[in-house]
Amino acid sequence: MKDDFVTARRSTLMSALPEQIASAVCGHCVRQNYARGETIFLQGDPARTLFIVLDGWVKLYRIAQSGEEAVVGVFTAGQSFGEVVVLKRGNFPVAAEAATDCRVMQVNAEVLFDLMRRYPEVVGSIMASMYGHFHALVGQIEQLKARTGAQRVAEFLLELCPVEAGACTVHLPYDKVLIAGRLGMKPESLSRAFVRLKAAGVSVITETAAIADVERLRDYSEQDRAEAWSKAQ
Amino acid sequence: MKDDFVTARRSTLMSALPEQIASAVCGHCVRQNYARGETIFLQGDPARTLFIVLDGWVKLYRIAQSGEEAVVGVFTAGQSFGEVVVLKRGNFPVAAEAATDCRVMQVNAEVLFDLMRRYPEVVGSIMASMYGHFHALVGQIEQLKARTGAQRVAEFLLELCPVEAGACTVHLPYDKVLIAGRLGMKPESLSRAFVRLKAAGVSVITETAAIADVERLRDYSEQDRAEAWSKAQ
Repeated sequence: MKDDFVTARRSTLMSALPEQIASAVCGHCVRQNYARGETIFLQGDPARTLFIVLDGWVKLYRIAQSGEEAVVGVFTAGQSFGEVVVLKRGNFPVAAEAATDCRVMQVNAEVLFDLMRRYPEVVGSIMASMYGHFHALVGQIEQLKARTGAQRVAEFLLELCPVEAGACTVHLPYDKVLIAGRLGMKPESLSRAFVRLKAAGVSVITETAAIADVERLRDYSEQDRAEAWSKAQ
Repeated sequence: MKDDFVTARRSTLMSALPEQIASAVCGHCVRQNYARGETIFLQGDPARTLFIVLDGWVKLYRIAQSGEEAVVGVFTAGQSFGEVVVLKRGNFPVAAEAATDCRVMQVNAEVLFDLMRRYPEVVGSIMASMYGHFHALVGQIEQLKARTGAQRVAEFLLELCPVEAGACTVHLPYDKVLIAGRLGMKPESLSRAFVRLKAAGVSVITETAAIADVERLRDYSEQDRAEAWSKAQ
């Protein structure tokens, strides 16, 4: 329970709240475990709670009218989702599924509204969190429009790097089909991107990526798309 | 001035407000004209106002680190933007530019906070508007990930259609470079998509698209991506 509180406190939603208020929010939360592949909610479900991930990974996705799945976001420990929809008392525009075994904390909408009335600080925290989500969606659209697939993979790996420069090794956090979906690629395109990234000093073996030089990989991810594309051929 | 009020009232932000409150909001607004290509604000500028478009088209875009432009949204009369950033008192994560000659109404952040305190209905309207923006971004990500370029063009044309079935003609609202940017395509890919859409009954001549059968075009836009792709070859 103590660890859960520490993890939840890392979220934008909770991090700016005074200890006593954060503790009050957590005191009203329900915790739940989901096995990998289990549905947390479906697209169109009424949004009655917001979520903070405590452990594992959660996938948010949409099913297009063609039946095709589009991954909209992947969230892990210390990240929240659902704020915008819960405040609107709307229906979820996405579905959520456990991408790995995971544990989530749920904050009920009514509890949230009550907390907002009692502690105006909670409103500011929700705004900050919504802004973060908004920023992430805008960033994702930029990535999809202004980057090659291999550059998106490079950015994804850079986010996982524990260092700012030099060599490092990162563990791929979830399976390659989901990585491809998150980056808007087919799984076979992801495999090709891994091959292309060898030229930028990346070697991927099963679930591990060895990066020879983080700065070199960053240069690759930020260069002009046409240039990156021609080099990758 | 009367017409401006009618246009502003069409926005999600204003439509649910009682007449008297909507009128109070508009009474505090500044109206401004921009010539095509003029900058409204830059990426990183502090967000001091939100915007309602009264006439013309406004483009929101990001410049990626590579220097490449990614269009994030295009807004027209009766649409608002900036709510999320203004409430967070943050910096704009996008830049705004007049895509055509345009006129916008600006609601100052401090005026907005004051109105929210005096009229709780304003809070609900802002939430509804934020939810709309959120939904649009999620929809755009779905489109980019689960649709071919030609299907995205088909959806774009369908949004412009004045009828639900049968034949119609639509006027392309802004130039083809911006249409391509909004749909995440190169201008040359847009031209190729127009050629492909002939098979779905669309013929584009300069700034006009003639659609033989709206339902047929909708079927095309919603079919499986692989199928659409193979038919388009």
